[in-house]
Amino acid sequence: MPIERSAVERWLREDVGHHDVTNDVPGETSGRLVATEPGVVAGTEAAVAVFEYLGVTVTDCLDAGAPVEPGDVAMSVAGPTEDVLRGERVAANLVGHASGVATRTRRAVETARGVSETVRIAGTRKTTPGLRGLEKRAIAAGGGDTHRLDLSHMAMVKDNHIAELGLERAVERVRDRSSFATRIEVEAEDVETARAAALAGADVVLLDNLPPETVERAVSVLGDLASDGSVEVPSDRVLTEASGGITIDDLEAYATTGVDVVSMGSLTHSASALDYSFRTGE
Amino acid sequence: MPIERSAVERWLREDVGHHDVTNDVPGETSGRLVATEPGVVAGTEAAVAVFEYLGVTVTDCLDAGAPVEPGDVAMSVAGPTEDVLRGERVAANLVGHASGVATRTRRAVETARGVSETVRIAGTRKTTPGLRGLEKRAIAAGGGDTHRLDLSHMAMVKDNHIAELGLERAVERVRDRSSFATRIEVEAEDVETARAAALAGADVVLLDNLPPETVERAVSVLGDLASDGSVEVPSDRVLTEASGGITIDDLEAYATTGVDVVSMGSLTHSASALDYSFRTGE
Amino acid sequence: MPIERSAVERWLREDVGHHDVTNDVPGETSGRLVATEPGVVAGTEAAVAVFEYLGVTVTDCLDAGAPVEPGDVAMSVAGPTEDVLRGERVAANLVGHASGVATRTRRAVETARGVSETVRIAGTRKTTPGLRGLEKRAIAAGGGDTHRLDLSHMAMVKDNHIAELGLERAVERVRDRSSFATRIEVEAEDVETARAAALAGADVVLLDNLPPETVERAVSVLGDLASDGSVEVPSDRVLTEASGGITIDDLEAYATTGVDVVSMGSLTHSASALDYSFRTGE
Amino acid sequence: MPIERSAVERWLREDVGHHDVTNDVPGETSGRLVATEPGVVAGTEAAVAVFEYLGVTVTDCLDAGAPVEPGDVAMSVAGPTEDVLRGERVAANLVGHASGVATRTRRAVETARGVSETVRIAGTRKTTPGLRGLEKRAIAAGGGDTHRLDLSHMAMVKDNHIAELGLERAVERVRDRSSFATRIEVEAEDVETARAAALAGADVVLLDNLPPETVERAVSVLGDLASDGSVEVPSDRVLTEASGGITIDDLEAYATTGVDVVSMGSLTHSASALDYSFRTGE
Amino acid sequence: MPIERSAVERWLREDVGHHDVTNDVPGETSGRLVATEPGVVAGTEAAVAVFEYLGVTVTDCLDAGAPVEPGDVAMSVAGPTEDVLRGERVAANLVGHASGVATRTRRAVETARGVSETVRIAGTRKTTPGLRGLEKRAIAAGGGDTHRLDLSHMAMVKDNHIAELGLERAVERVRDRSSFATRIEVEAEDVETARAAALAGADVVLLDNLPPETVERAVSVLGDLASDGSVEVPSDRVLTEASGGITIDDLEAYATTGVDVVSMGSLTHSASALDYSFRTGE
Amino acid sequence: MPIERSAVERWLREDVGHHDVTNDVPGETSGRLVATEPGVVAGTEAAVAVFEYLGVTVTDCLDAGAPVEPGDVAMSVAGPTEDVLRGERVAANLVGHASGVATRTRRAVETARGVSETVRIAGTRKTTPGLRGLEKRAIAAGGGDTHRLDLSHMAMVKDNHIAELGLERAVERVRDRSSFATRIEVEAEDVETARAAALAGADVVLLDNLPPETVERAVSVLGDLASDGSVEVPSDRVLTEASGGITIDDLEAYATTGVDVVSMGSLTHSASALDYSFRTGE
Repeated sequence: MPIERSAVERWLREDVGHHDVTNDVPGETSGRLVATEPGVVAGTEAAVAVFEYLGVTVTDCLDAGAPVEPGDVAMSVAGPTEDVLRGERVAANLVGHASGVATRTRRAVETARGVSETVRIAGTRKTTPGLRGLEKRAIAAGGGDTHRLDLSHMAMVKDNHIAELGLERAVERVRDRSSFATRIEVEAEDVETARAAALAGADVVLLDNLPPETVERAVSVLGDLASDGSVEVPSDRVLTEASGGITIDDLEAYATTGVDVVSMGSLTHSASALDYSFRTGE
Repeated sequence: MPIERSAVERWLREDVGHHDVTNDVPGETSGRLVATEPGVVAGTEAAVAVFEYLGVTVTDCLDAGAPVEPGDVAMSVAGPTEDVLRGERVAANLVGHASGVATRTRRAVETARGVSETVRIAGTRKTTPGLRGLEKRAIAAGGGDTHRLDLSHMAMVKDNHIAELGLERAVERVRDRSSFATRIEVEAEDVETARAAALAGADVVLLDNLPPETVERAVSVLGDLASDGSVEVPSDRVLTEASGGITIDDLEAYATTGVDVVSMGSLTHSASALDYSFRTGE
Repeated sequence: MPIERSAVERWLREDVGHHDVTNDVPGETSGRLVATEPGVVAGTEAAVAVFEYLGVTVTDCLDAGAPVEPGDVAMSVAGPTEDVLRGERVAANLVGHASGVATRTRRAVETARGVSETVRIAGTRKTTPGLRGLEKRAIAAGGGDTHRLDLSHMAMVKDNHIAELGLERAVERVRDRSSFATRIEVEAEDVETARAAALAGADVVLLDNLPPETVERAVSVLGDLASDGSVEVPSDRVLTEASGGITIDDLEAYATTGVDVVSMGSLTHSASALDYSFRTGE
Repeated sequence: MPIERSAVERWLREDVGHHDVTNDVPGETSGRLVATEPGVVAGTEAAVAVFEYLGVTVTDCLDAGAPVEPGDVAMSVAGPTEDVLRGERVAANLVGHASGVATRTRRAVETARGVSETVRIAGTRKTTPGLRGLEKRAIAAGGGDTHRLDLSHMAMVKDNHIAELGLERAVERVRDRSSFATRIEVEAEDVETARAAALAGADVVLLDNLPPETVERAVSVLGDLASDGSVEVPSDRVLTEASGGITIDDLEAYATTGVDVVSMGSLTHSASALDYSFRTGE
Repeated sequence: MPIERSAVERWLREDVGHHDVTNDVPGETSGRLVATEPGVVAGTEAAVAVFEYLGVTVTDCLDAGAPVEPGDVAMSVAGPTEDVLRGERVAANLVGHASGVATRTRRAVETARGVSETVRIAGTRKTTPGLRGLEKRAIAAGGGDTHRLDLSHMAMVKDNHIAELGLERAVERVRDRSSFATRIEVEAEDVETARAAALAGADVVLLDNLPPETVERAVSVLGDLASDGSVEVPSDRVLTEASGGITIDDLEAYATTGVDVVSMGSLTHSASALDYSFRTGE
Repeated sequence: MPIERSAVERWLREDVGHHDVTNDVPGETSGRLVATEPGVVAGTEAAVAVFEYLGVTVTDCLDAGAPVEPGDVAMSVAGPTEDVLRGERVAANLVGHASGVATRTRRAVETARGVSETVRIAGTRKTTPGLRGLEKRAIAAGGGDTHRLDLSHMAMVKDNHIAELGLERAVERVRDRSSFATRIEVEAEDVETARAAALAGADVVLLDNLPPETVERAVSVLGDLASDGSVEVPSDRVLTEASGGITIDDLEAYATTGVDVVSMGSLTHSASALDYSFRTGE
């Protein structure tokens, strides 16, 4: 569900309150949401939903993923003045927030592309409560990978599972209880565990909180497994993911390790909003 | 309403999905939410609500506004393992987000305190949709001023009102339609308008998008009005607010102008999350 | 938010039930909501929202605040017969209820105007749960003052605060924790407390459960403070409010005291509905 | 469903807002909801739900239907001060409103009992949107008859049905489409229609907007039908209902006609709240 | 309320999730919901509500109750491809489920009609949680009787009531507390109780878990009561209902007993979906 | 989220209505939900949530997946009589429905096990709207595979995608837009397409609406690909799924083909409820 109408209603309710005198203005008006700094647009579908809830018409709306420069119009609207004015702050907050995520993602992707053609930059579950879908789609708009959308999307075998059952049985147990539609990722805190996870049938191995050197070694060990025909490997495509407090400054170091995915919580939990200005009239 | 249970339910739903195999684990466990960087705590009441929805017991919860250092425990929990694990990500996201706002606010307040004992650092309506209350209370936890909570809290006389009716009639009209319980703020784009607004009976004059020098001049002109007994001034306490893209770097310059309030959208729309780690077991 | 669609849905659900045979009628019809007694219209925006939810077109809708005489049409509708019939009772209940509040308010305002040009007649928080906004806007439609819309709108310093901290510190504490956007009212049970509240910086002094003579004396004492230049008064505009079981019969006595605001819970909790009849066909 | 938690949440939300400084008070307190005028209690189950949502303990709660005198305690509560204070206004509004309906109903029932031992005093669908169940149960608490709870409860054959199909076919059509569990009432605007409705198989005949004399005549005619064995009457228990703007002043005149039910919209749409005071501390 | 928009939103949300790549397809398309087996259509109003929520236009929609043969088009739709594709599964699930109930009902009705012209085939409260209204209307579409829609629709006197108070007082108590608009049904486990229930004033006697022979005897005894003028019978129209695990195989045996109503939980709790296929393009 | 409280509230609301006289009974009672036919338990967590919402205590609750015989107690409850009685029908409907799905799944799994040790029996998206999670977990309880939980869980490349872009580019496009966490399934209507899908990098190949012989051939062709080192195969673990109107009668024929997964919509859309009886008292 891109944007639920009940969410739009809640967002407007919390901003308007019981008796808004300021915007109790007769007549019709038009307006434009204008970018005031360069970045990547996202969240416009949410702003459209806000204006539509209020009976305001939206035209010329930029698609998620479009680059903007200062002065670019993200969308134009027209309708009763009071409805336009009651929607504009919520709409701008949504587009500003989502565009901030998309812009930060694009920057990370471009940084990584400088050293690797294939590494994926992914978000995490560290999203703003209530905005999971909006932020995940903003990551996609910025060229990133959404990573798992919720706990039910991809199953994880974590250190506490392994501690309890041993790695092989832990993977087997999760595989057994998960659908064939579900990928399984195993958390590894060292190279040996990563190797064991691959042999146990993980689809993805998570290299968590490891320095780039160790990540590189783990990737290499798993690559050898895949190309080595003499060992019985359940899959020749075990993916690797590096995670754990990786910042834009560390990114190149990780991206050059050959890891398939670098995931960064900061794409969502610490993105600055992209600034937009809402302008009424001609 | 600090935290609504229906919001907790939505936050959990979007993170858990229809069939979470990963956390389908028997037994009981305990856990702690541990700060990993210094800052100001906020949002704990939301995390408590999440754990309580799941039947998990919370103890030793820090109050909003408490300072934390790396290693400090923000709260401890105990309950069925699957419920603890299903709550921890959402709880950490809420506390991390709100603490980020509180920490950024505290930093801005401290910066301003270096040059002014009285200036208030306020948020704006540029909050994350769905989290208005959480973020406003996080600003308060950081020592800031929430500013108006919604459109119905304080009425604004804006440039388009003034353009249509003239300043005096615009103020009169809004005053007439607003409750005696409601303050009225008038937007001024130059010193002359600020003066006219004060004479027309504004409770607050908003000095929007003006350089510090102009803000200082406006504050001085309004101060003269107040102390000048020969002019009929409706109030001797017109407050002044400076706003418009003010950053932490500009803050001192504005804080020294004598303005009563400096408001900064970045407190909410661009705060980085404060990092917490959730640790299970002893 | 004037009227939330989710509220409309709930209102219709509770009146329609799972299988309404009575109104399962083919074809199209038109109808009019007709006043059958004189009064003041309010709540039409809610009725419009009900009919729009059902896909029924509304035309010629009277604005809130318009006076009506028996036979006046508050709104006309047209659409599928079953939808018109399913909406009419809920729509009439809303308009009847809100118009009752507006009419009672108008009567109180006119009574007060007979003895005072400036006194404001205000509602209270004694509203019908679920209809806070509707009733507050109905008060405004009747020419009254909404008073504070919710607990977060204006802060109160109450007798228990004062008992605990002393009046000055209690006011200071609430001022300190409230936004600059928030007015502060102090509850006073005698003239001396009223005077102390004004000196402590109250924006409004609530004269609660006092006879008109005492209210008059308090107003006079506060007026002296304001005009007396030798005393350092934080504001020359402390407002006064009289409250506490004031009825239409007492109203003149209170309105002549010079008090700024008389608030009456009965405007909302005891207003009789204004009677409307819904008529289908030509 | 007596009281839904989601309703409680909405009622609290609309009264509290985003940041309630007034009641942000530490410690624990107790309180009592005290009647200040005589009447009949109702709505206590809703107040209990409000306090329970907030984690406040309720004791000694009067049942719906209990008579109260000034000074009687409707319920006692204890809990964190801020939660007690945040719940008290909503709780008092609910109990005051519902008790107002119950008290008005009791008065009407007693008036009618003076002239008839059996006549039922019923409410209508003219209830306050959002409070259908609360008000219907308040009518029952006052000794009245809830009448149909929603459109799906009892089916009506109305004048427009009759105009289209003729009375017999209209009744047959509604009977055919309704469950055997559903009673069917036919609207009659004169005695002849009332008689035809009874012969057509109505369970109830609604004598709408008729003077008492006509109601009496209709009741008599229907009584003759029942006792007359030579006519094939589908039922010997056709009930009769008088409705249409009947006030407490008219009530005796209608109650003496022998009609089974007198229904009065004013029980819900125009009941004054019963006054309660919430008192904290010992 | 036929179909609530909030329900549509929930149904779509649970099927779409946070980021649906599969259907993220540009352009416009049309489609048809086509029956692939013979049956009775129901639930189309729900499918229409789904498509309308998504902004998809519906045309040529079959009414509930219409018979379909393989290849028949239940509805045609047109709109943005991604919205058509996101709606089709939920729409088909709703129509398939409701049509399954309607088809099973029609079959039961036809079976009963073979032996009785008047017996009604009714559902029960054994419906799928969340779909009470949809399923009850599907029963009606299939020619069945909805039975009571909820607990508040018809009151029951059950064996535990009778055990506590005795049958006469139990009936009297429920009658006294129920509205005149409410029918009262008494549960009888043998013929003698059925007779006593009728004499005590039951509107309906439920013959629960009895073999057809006993049902027949009870019906006969109650019929004698009605025609016997010497006994004071409160009503000559006591209805009889047979219930309790009755299957399509037993149905004829029960339908020939003269009982008025046969109710079958399996109409809703065990109906197979009617199969439909959604086809896009020309 | 196993069971949302808001869902419980809706389920109870639709069954109880505004004024339930039948169950307005004083005192406390206990009760048991007893199986009356053999099967597999599921949905007990939902019944527990219903009773807990009502303040009824649940003990001795069977886990999902447990086998039951007639007379087995699925759960015991105790609490206020009116709350126990108001919850029992909804609770029994949920457990009956979910257990019906689990039982049908178990039967299918056992049938398949007769001919294959490894084939998985999976559900589809043909679930009852509103009950996706309940039914998916019931499938798991019966030993089945949930298949994709929603559209965002696993991405599909469908015939219309292939028609537009060609198979290779269609797969590439979906892979590119999907997260690394997401499996990709390609729909194949013949063996050649199945082979091309595997070579293009599908994780799963859906053999839709094909007879068992063709499924067997496709499985064999894909197996050859995997073991043939000379061909560059992106993965040696392409899974195969057979789908399309497969019934319990066809199941053996499909299960012997070597296909990895057989999916059956009938597990959810056409499962008969398992019968339970709720018994109060000792």
